[in-house]
Amino acid sequence: MTRRTDAPGAPVTMATVARRAGVSTQTVSNAFNAPELLRSETLVRVRKAVAELNYRPHRAARSLRTRSSKLIGYAIRASDGGGNVMDRFLHALSQSAAEAGYRVLLFPSPAGPAELEEYEELLREHSVDAFALTHTVRGDKRQTWLHRRGIPFVAFGRTWGSKGVGDWVDVDGAAGTGQAVDHLVQLGHRRIAYLGWPAGSPVGDDRLRGWKEAMKRHGLPVRGLRAQALGEVEQGAAAAGGLLDAGASAVVTASDTLAMGCYLALRDRGLSAGRDVSVVGFDDAPAAQLLSPGLTTLRQPMEDVGQMCMQLLLKRITDPSAPAERVLLAPHLVVRDSTAPVPLTA
Amino acid sequence: MTRRTDAPGAPVTMATVARRAGVSTQTVSNAFNAPELLRSETLVRVRKAVAELNYRPHRAARSLRTRSSKLIGYAIRASDGGGNVMDRFLHALSQSAAEAGYRVLLFPSPAGPAELEEYEELLREHSVDAFALTHTVRGDKRQTWLHRRGIPFVAFGRTWGSKGVGDWVDVDGAAGTGQAVDHLVQLGHRRIAYLGWPAGSPVGDDRLRGWKEAMKRHGLPVRGLRAQALGEVEQGAAAAGGLLDAGASAVVTASDTLAMGCYLALRDRGLSAGRDVSVVGFDDAPAAQLLSPGLTTLRQPMEDVGQMCMQLLLKRITDPSAPAERVLLAPHLVVRDSTAPVPLTA
Repeated sequence: MTRRTDAPGAPVTMATVARRAGVSTQTVSNAFNAPELLRSETLVRVRKAVAELNYRPHRAARSLRTRSSKLIGYAIRASDGGGNVMDRFLHALSQSAAEAGYRVLLFPSPAGPAELEEYEELLREHSVDAFALTHTVRGDKRQTWLHRRGIPFVAFGRTWGSKGVGDWVDVDGAAGTGQAVDHLVQLGHRRIAYLGWPAGSPVGDDRLRGWKEAMKRHGLPVRGLRAQALGEVEQGAAAAGGLLDAGASAVVTASDTLAMGCYLALRDRGLSAGRDVSVVGFDDAPAAQLLSPGLTTLRQPMEDVGQMCMQLLLKRITDPSAPAERVLLAPHLVVRDSTAPVPLTA
Repeated sequence: MTRRTDAPGAPVTMATVARRAGVSTQTVSNAFNAPELLRSETLVRVRKAVAELNYRPHRAARSLRTRSSKLIGYAIRASDGGGNVMDRFLHALSQSAAEAGYRVLLFPSPAGPAELEEYEELLREHSVDAFALTHTVRGDKRQTWLHRRGIPFVAFGRTWGSKGVGDWVDVDGAAGTGQAVDHLVQLGHRRIAYLGWPAGSPVGDDRLRGWKEAMKRHGLPVRGLRAQALGEVEQGAAAAGGLLDAGASAVVTASDTLAMGCYLALRDRGLSAGRDVSVVGFDDAPAAQLLSPGLTTLRQPMEDVGQMCMQLLLKRITDPSAPAERVLLAPHLVVRDSTAPVPLTA
């Protein structure tokens, strides 16, 4: 094999590396894909040439060779105004994916059957190796659709049904509202109310359950201490008013927005959060720390969720037939000034 | 050519299509890449087979053939708490990209030189055809780096320097604060104050300029009507207090957070936004419509920004040597109850 000089600036290819190392391109290819076939002396020579030339195999060529694109599909939804939770998840997922040599490929998608059409399109083109799902709902079709086709996936969110398939990671909402109750009990509160959404949303029902079970655990009454409102400040304020009238000294809520409703209801009565009545939110939206007083709230551990999703996904890619894994991660209570010991005059 | 039957469920390849159509695989390839070489009768036969078999060319194979991955790189930053602007941009960009046959490939990246290393990595692997930049700063190195290498890119955000290169799309902050002043003048306000960030941030300086120029245009005084604070509610409240003391009947702010500071300063004085003093925010963060009263604020046209970015990028990919294009899009004033006619008693 003749040693040739390559033009400066010319793209570095497998052939360039082969020339520099004085081996065949097949040998260079083997160094990447089947190093055990090479004598160690040859392997060292190829690796040296690779390092000197700063060579990386062409991703598309590698894709064809390995039948893997190292891409994970993620359907991005129109902003749902739900704080920054999805934003943080997407960042964490792409970070963990990158650490494992994967990239996240975004595709815009509405909910429903249209999303499956997009999946089909991406799979037909072999563009993605796996999918990360979010916004899971009861009776979600996506998991079974992917499972039946043997496509690796992981969901951020439970399937919320008895017959759910596949791996998922979710935030333990019940554990979160339970923690909020524990925190308030420690501050001396006994009449701890809950302001949630109307029954029927699985996430909401889960958070409600956490409050109820924790109250029971502490031997505290729940009667008359529960109200519901849709997720808007004004409606939250109206519902919170009833809880204040019922003598609640603290309110645990299903969202920061409902917590803002409590602030409003308190202000209307000349009272203030923290000093007069404690309030706990859920989500740690950007506004939570900007409120006055700062809102004590449950922060979802999105960095851990993203990391765990990627971990389960890599396992699934390696072993498609392993039993499904499900991980619940507890949210973290961020204590600010909206929770305080129960006032002596109460 | 013998017509063979393919096993049901076997992957559909170019060879499958060729067999179905009774042509060579080269002819199928030509049907996709050089249809003008085929007789129309043959082309119809191949297209029929493609449709019947629901065949799509393998993306990686196409990438190698066309030297194009149809992927656009986008560096995702850790959530900056800056409302939902980036979130909305990313959604709009991936939507417009999909319509043009492109996908957005996410990679996590800190600001600074580390981002360029990531670009280099992605380019070496030929994974992306182009980049979309955000979070542009004065003296940004990324544009010249990409420009020198002939890599197509578009920036959401100006280069903010005289020697900037490349195409960009940005939101016209000055036009936004100017619009806010026009709106307030129409409501009868004359003492219209501005609450912004400390001088030196290009985005902030731009928004300040818009207020100042609009005030001049209307022949209104600006003396003593300008204050600054970092982007936190409490600091905003302190600074807004000074403006209220100076007799401002309205305050235009550089952010929804500073506007929330105005709300707080008003409440401390027993006054309320809208009824007593008008307040205009900037960004239309999710909290803006949840505040009481709802905040009149400037909404950045992220859907248009994403679409325009993709349009410029496609042009740049087609014609790398065309002169640079720069597009400024005006934000849209969302009028809620925090702005009202100047009170008669004022």
